[in-house]
Amino acid sequence: MSRGAMARLAVAARAFSASASGAGAGGVSMVQGASRGIGLEFVRQLLRRSGEGRVVATCRAPGSAAELQKLKEEHAPGRLTLLPLDVTDESTIEAAAASITETHGSLDLLINSTGILSIPNVIEPETTLSKVQKSSLMLAYEVNAVGPILVIKHMWPLLKVGGRSETGRGFALVANMSARVSSIGDNALGGWHAYRASKTALNQLTKTVSVEFGRKDNIACILLHPGTVDTDLSRPFQRNVPKGKLFTREFSVQKLLSIIDNVKKSDNGKFFAWDGQEIPW
Amino acid sequence: MSRGAMARLAVAARAFSASASGAGAGGVSMVQGASRGIGLEFVRQLLRRSGEGRVVATCRAPGSAAELQKLKEEHAPGRLTLLPLDVTDESTIEAAAASITETHGSLDLLINSTGILSIPNVIEPETTLSKVQKSSLMLAYEVNAVGPILVIKHMWPLLKVGGRSETGRGFALVANMSARVSSIGDNALGGWHAYRASKTALNQLTKTVSVEFGRKDNIACILLHPGTVDTDLSRPFQRNVPKGKLFTREFSVQKLLSIIDNVKKSDNGKFFAWDGQEIPW
Repeated sequence: MSRGAMARLAVAARAFSASASGAGAGGVSMVQGASRGIGLEFVRQLLRRSGEGRVVATCRAPGSAAELQKLKEEHAPGRLTLLPLDVTDESTIEAAAASITETHGSLDLLINSTGILSIPNVIEPETTLSKVQKSSLMLAYEVNAVGPILVIKHMWPLLKVGGRSETGRGFALVANMSARVSSIGDNALGGWHAYRASKTALNQLTKTVSVEFGRKDNIACILLHPGTVDTDLSRPFQRNVPKGKLFTREFSVQKLLSIIDNVKKSDNGKFFAWDGQEIPW
Repeated sequence: MSRGAMARLAVAARAFSASASGAGAGGVSMVQGASRGIGLEFVRQLLRRSGEGRVVATCRAPGSAAELQKLKEEHAPGRLTLLPLDVTDESTIEAAAASITETHGSLDLLINSTGILSIPNVIEPETTLSKVQKSSLMLAYEVNAVGPILVIKHMWPLLKVGGRSETGRGFALVANMSARVSSIGDNALGGWHAYRASKTALNQLTKTVSVEFGRKDNIACILLHPGTVDTDLSRPFQRNVPKGKLFTREFSVQKLLSIIDNVKKSDNGKFFAWDGQEIPW
């Protein structure tokens, strides 16, 4: 999006917010990467916990996202909006931003929940340097690091409005799903080169964005580690998880929402595990 | 390179090393990204300081690298080998590895010195999130993070032989040029999204590789921050450098070689500034 187009969006968003909605109790939350796993559970719990809050759920193909369609039917009209968004295609991010500007006018919470670790025959977590493939490194980076940052870039005007509204926590919040294996200081096992590096880069990009938001805007960014959660992403690796350490999606998202609810502006740029402990870089 | 081809290379490298060279005083050093800046200065000082050590210098087009050609003429035949290598083209990395296997048989030191920060109209250090471009993020990652790791992957069999030789420090060493701005913990200024994230990812990839080397091989990996050095890379930004903090290439490389000379096996996976101080992740 050009700078001019962004400025126009921001003006449109402000005008909309002043005239109507956006500032309803519970505010407007967006979950990017919502068709399954942790993202889907965020949508479910956000809809359940706040009677008036509205949720925008994005995924590549909402039309075939059965669980999201079901949630939409179960809730009052307007509470859940489904939009197509593919983090590898920036034009879909811009289109989603334009659509949210029109229908909601602001964002109080943005959760970036997409992430790839393994796709058979496309990307496999590497067990040794000799299995590292350029194509895997580039794809993991595009989806896990570049995608979320482009989403924040295009949602920025909407977050600025959300940060000024009186709803919720008093500032807009961006929560990016990272993972403990992204910690360099904590890396004692090696392996998983493409995934690790992409999530470490996401940590740096989030920190970089948080510095600018901290200076200019009423927006904070945090990074979250959900634990090892029983999802499609973790399924091939669950045999290595100690007993009691494989969380249900319900449990993990409850914990993460508790962090999101209690986060302070001074937490801007920090990286929290599901239990609220800070993770070293 | 396939696993089978790698294994064959390793066998060939061992046979070569046992029969001849590779183990000469000073050993065999490779400088990747040697046509200018810090890489070129590494080549110059490595040739000057060790009468028998041999140097392999790589860059995209050795034929038009005037300074490297001049150094080659100034030194005894065989001391400096120039090879084409483009970190964005893995086949050139494989070809360089095959060539070094044939001519030298081992590597005692590998310095990865390529890096891009700005190319007019292609990639510019970002001053704000709204200027972040997907193409810049992807290109910086490809050159600054993926490239060096692919070089290590293909030079691994040669480094294994170098690590077993009696020359030098008793183990083979990989030194990757990083930068202080890659530190997440130290990021108080923001900006430079693409460059920062790519170098942070390089830090994680280097750490990941160091864990495997520490377990299997007599090879160590370190990351180096050269300071702000008077090179083409830093030129557009030198006006912001405090007096006395813009180093000559000679000074910076002297300092970095002093770290390389004195590094211990237990420093495997660490990140050092030019003055020997460790940099936080």
